[in-house]
Order: sequence, then structure tokens, then C-alpha cells
Amino acid sequence: MTPALPTRADIEAAAGRLAPYLRTTPVVAVDPDDLGLSGRRAPLLLKLEMVQHSGSFKARGAHLHLLAPDLPAAGVVAASGGNFGAAVAYAARRLGVPATVFIPDSSAPAKLDRLRSLGATVEVIPGIYDDALAASRRRAGESGARFLHAFDQPEMLAGSGTLAAELAGQVDADRVVVAVGGGGLIGGVAAWHRGDLPVTGVETAGCRTMAAALAAGHPVEVEVSGIGTDALGARRAGDLPFASASRWVDEVVVVADEDVVDAQRRLWSALRLATEPAGAAALAALTTGALADPDERVAVVLCGANVDPGTLA
Amino acid sequence: MTPALPTRADIEAAAGRLAPYLRTTPVVAVDPDDLGLSGRRAPLLLKLEMVQHSGSFKARGAHLHLLAPDLPAAGVVAASGGNFGAAVAYAARRLGVPATVFIPDSSAPAKLDRLRSLGATVEVIPGIYDDALAASRRRAGESGARFLHAFDQPEMLAGSGTLAAELAGQVDADRVVVAVGGGGLIGGVAAWHRGDLPVTGVETAGCRTMAAALAAGHPVEVEVSGIGTDALGARRAGDLPFASASRWVDEVVVVADEDVVDAQRRLWSALRLATEPAGAAALAALTTGALADPDERVAVVLCGANVDPGTLA
Repeated sequence: MTPALPTRADIEAAAGRLAPYLRTTPVVAVDPDDLGLSGRRAPLLLKLEMVQHSGSFKARGAHLHLLAPDLPAAGVVAASGGNFGAAVAYAARRLGVPATVFIPDSSAPAKLDRLRSLGATVEVIPGIYDDALAASRRRAGESGARFLHAFDQPEMLAGSGTLAAELAGQVDADRVVVAVGGGGLIGGVAAWHRGDLPVTGVETAGCRTMAAALAAGHPVEVEVSGIGTDALGARRAGDLPFASASRWVDEVVVVADEDVVDAQRRLWSALRLATEPAGAAALAALTTGALADPDERVAVVLCGANVDPGTLA
Repeated sequence: MTPALPTRADIEAAAGRLAPYLRTTPVVAVDPDDLGLSGRRAPLLLKLEMVQHSGSFKARGAHLHLLAPDLPAAGVVAASGGNFGAAVAYAARRLGVPATVFIPDSSAPAKLDRLRSLGATVEVIPGIYDDALAASRRRAGESGARFLHAFDQPEMLAGSGTLAAELAGQVDADRVVVAVGGGGLIGGVAAWHRGDLPVTGVETAGCRTMAAALAAGHPVEVEVSGIGTDALGARRAGDLPFASASRWVDEVVVVADEDVVDAQRRLWSALRLATEPAGAAALAALTTGALADPDERVAVVLCGANVDPGTLA
């Protein structure tokens, strides 16, 4: 069975539906020297997606889900204490859709508070994320609410694809670099470009689900650890994201946790931009020297900033 | 004697000189609801000037000073532990100009460290800012270095004017709102617009130098206090800024310190944008209801983010 990847026309239609609800996130061109990349000559093109609603790119796919014309009256259920949960809660309140977000009782209390402050009904489930995910699927079956997956559904890829479409209209880049968790972002970006531009993914060594999937030829379970666990820490790449990435992604670069922290600090120091680790991970593909062509105009997606700003100083 | 305000042609020439050195800072259009401004209908246009070099708009005037063709071999001297000092130190290192920055010994050690880390020679002077300013003028007289004033010289107005020119090329606004300290920013913005667009200034109640100057008909000494002291706390509006503001500024709105803190929090919460108090002050003109036309497309300049990010949570 071939998973139904969004086409470019699907993504354009999604962009049209989302236009009244989403922010066009700006791009700033930066001299590579300013970020300590003294060997590079072409400017870096930073896509400031952290200013998107709910603080990350997940708002795109979440809004697209909730704008579906056939949404059941029972609304939606999702599992995530992170950016996806926040995006669903945000979009649900805004669009007047009932939403229940399941999180494991191992979540930090701050996540629970944040989801509640966004107006979501929150269900705290004993166990880990997988338990919350299973509970959300059960609830969907019982209540008729729609089950939303954090990355492995066409809406999430189409939503992320709108980021690529928007970026392509803003700048003339030679390459796009994005962080990879479960693959919803890179899958959508690659599905937009369909090979017309090289797309590079970035994972941390402790969260290399897509690199492992590409090496194996199919998604595989990996142990996750380290700084990326929270936002990049899917244990298995999604089937849809994998289908897109395996066709149209140039390469997945693996960086160390320290490189991500260093990238966060550079962005704060040089541009006063706050990013979460996943939000800065894409830049680490440049600071580590993984992308070596000094004349390539690289667009770097800073995909989220749900971070305690006190950690950036 | 009429002070020599920069003309629009001067500002355009400055923009040309600065273009290879400065960032074009992006603009993001935001639904007023997102910032709690539910009565407004027109989008807010936020100019993200905090991503400028050295973290504030001061980089514009500082670079313009240091790009002067007739710069003395002895370089420049300036007095400021804040954004102006950082901008001069940054531009001086970048352009290879000798720079000495004078700061009072009452400055926080962090400011001294920051200036030194930017490569400036720092002279610590016993007393307050005025003592450092006097010492910097003396040094200029002795050494032949050029004395740079934080806001009361044509280069600072022309530099700030380039921000207005850049913004005018990016968006179609009905009004521009900026924070006022000594007046270098608003003086330059008003000198660009020359009345073709209403320009509004914002001061805190403890730092109302320009409001006081406009009321008196000339710059007057005021006591400064409160949250704006650090970046907005000039005790007297500059003569050049006043000459520009008195001609072409629509109004100077005075807000409370709490309104500025509230504006900082809204920007962090809704957009993950870090701003210093002066950087967020312009937004407070809207959140306090001072600008009441709900259909006016207001451009708000977020002029700096030299802030301890830990204070934003």
C-alpha cells in the first residue's frame, strides 16, 4: 500500500485554507560570519517559524486538521505534552472545536498547565507517551472524535508543506535544512519540493529515527535520549514522513547535543532569537561543517521556541 | 541656529552606505487578537529590529558614524554602557576602527564585560553617566578621536531614518510607533517621513524627556526613574531629535512601567519574541488604548532585545 502523500496541489490548497489563520513567518538574511561560519560566502536565510501561533510549525498541520469540513461534532483527540499538543489546543480554542489532549503522568507539570491555559481538556494517563497515545486512540474509537497523530497523517505533512511553499515565495534558496523528529516537518517540506531543491534533515545522535529508517529502508524503532528527546524524540519515523523523505530528502545529518546547544547560543547572541533545541538543530548542520559548499544559499528553518528563555543566556 | 536635520536624500544616501553592513530586519503581520487587542481590526505590523547587529537599532547610526570617509586615525570615543556603547564597539571591531567606550563605575559589571567581549577599549569613570560623557568629550579633544553622541548627532538620526525607509519599503502602514529615549530613533524616523505618515512616540512616565520637551517648546532636564532608565533614560531630549520631533511627530504617548512589562510578556507569549523594556514600549501605546482607531494599520518598531532572557518567562 502506498501512503497518500500530499501533492503540490494539495499543499497549495492547504495554504489557501490556512491563510486566514496562520502567520506568514518572516525570513532574515544573515552574514555567515555573524554566526561564526567564516568559511561560508552565501548568506544564511533564517525562516523565523518560531513566531508562528503556539510557538512552532505544528500550528500549520493542527489548524489544517481542525478546518476539515467533515470534522465530527465530538471534535478531536490528540496525545502530546509538547508542541503538537499546544498547537492542537491553540487551534481548537480558536476554531471552537472540542479537543482533548492526552499526556502521560511523567510529563512536567508545566506542560499540563500550559495545555490547560490554552483551554484544552487534558487527560493525564499513567505511564509514558505510548500509553497516552493508546488512550487517545481508544477515546477516539469510543467518542467518535477524530484521532490526530503528531506527524503521521497527511494533514500534518500538508501543513508543513505550506511552510516550504511560503519560504519558496520569500527567498531564492539553493537548499532547505530542517530538524527531524517523527518527520512531519521534513516530510511535508520534501513533499512540496519533490526534488526540485535539496532538502536536508538534522537529527541529534540520541534521536536519529529518520537516519535509522533511511539506513534500514523502512521505519525502525530506536532508543531515544538526550537533548532532543522532548521535541525530536519520536521512537520511530512516521510511515508517511518516511515515504516522502526516502524519495525526496537529500540527506539526514546527525549532530551532537552540544552542537544544538551551541546553535541556540549563537542565535541568541547574534540575533536575539530564542529557539528551543529542535528549533536550533537545523543550524547545527552548518556549524558542524556538514554542509560544505560555501556558496550555497541555505535556508534554515527555526521551527520552534517553546523554551524557558532563562536557559538561553 | 537651525540644527542640520538629515534630509530624505541624506537618509537614502545613508541607506546605500549601510546596505553591505546591516541586516534588513523583517516585519511580521499579527492579528491584534493575538496580542489581546481585541477591539482592533487592522493587523499590527511588527518590525523586528531586535535582530539587528548588536541587538538594537543603534547599530545603524553607529555604523554610519564609523563609515565616515574622514574618520580620524585616532578613531572614535563614546560614552554608554548600553545599546549605543555595544553598537559602537560592535561596528568598531567589524570596521577596524579604534574605539574607546567610557562608562561610569556605577554600571553593572555585565555591561563592562559585554563591551570588552566586543573588543572595545573600555574606560571606567567614577560617577554617573554624565561624568563618563564629559570624560569622553575630553578624550576626544586630547586625542583627536571623534566624539560620538548616543543620539544628538546627524549620523544617529540618519541611521534611524534608514529604519523608516526600510520599513516603508516593506509594508503599507498608516502610522509608525517607536519608543523614545533621547530621541535618536524617533528623530530619524520623523525626519524620513516628514509628515507623510503620523509618527507616534512612546515614553514611560519616569522617562518623559520628549513629552516634556514638546510641552515646554524646547528640551528640558527631567528626573528619570523606573524601568526605562537604562535605555530610555536620557535626562534631556537631544536638540536635533527635538527639532525633528517638534516638526513631524504626531504625539508622544506616556505609559506606565507595568504596561511595558506587560507588553514584553505579550510579545514573548504570543510570538516568542524577546524584547528589552525599550524594545516593547512601542507596543504599550496600543495595549493601553492610546491609539484608538481600530482600522489603522500600525507599524510597531521592536527596537532592541538586550535583555536577560530569564526575565521574560
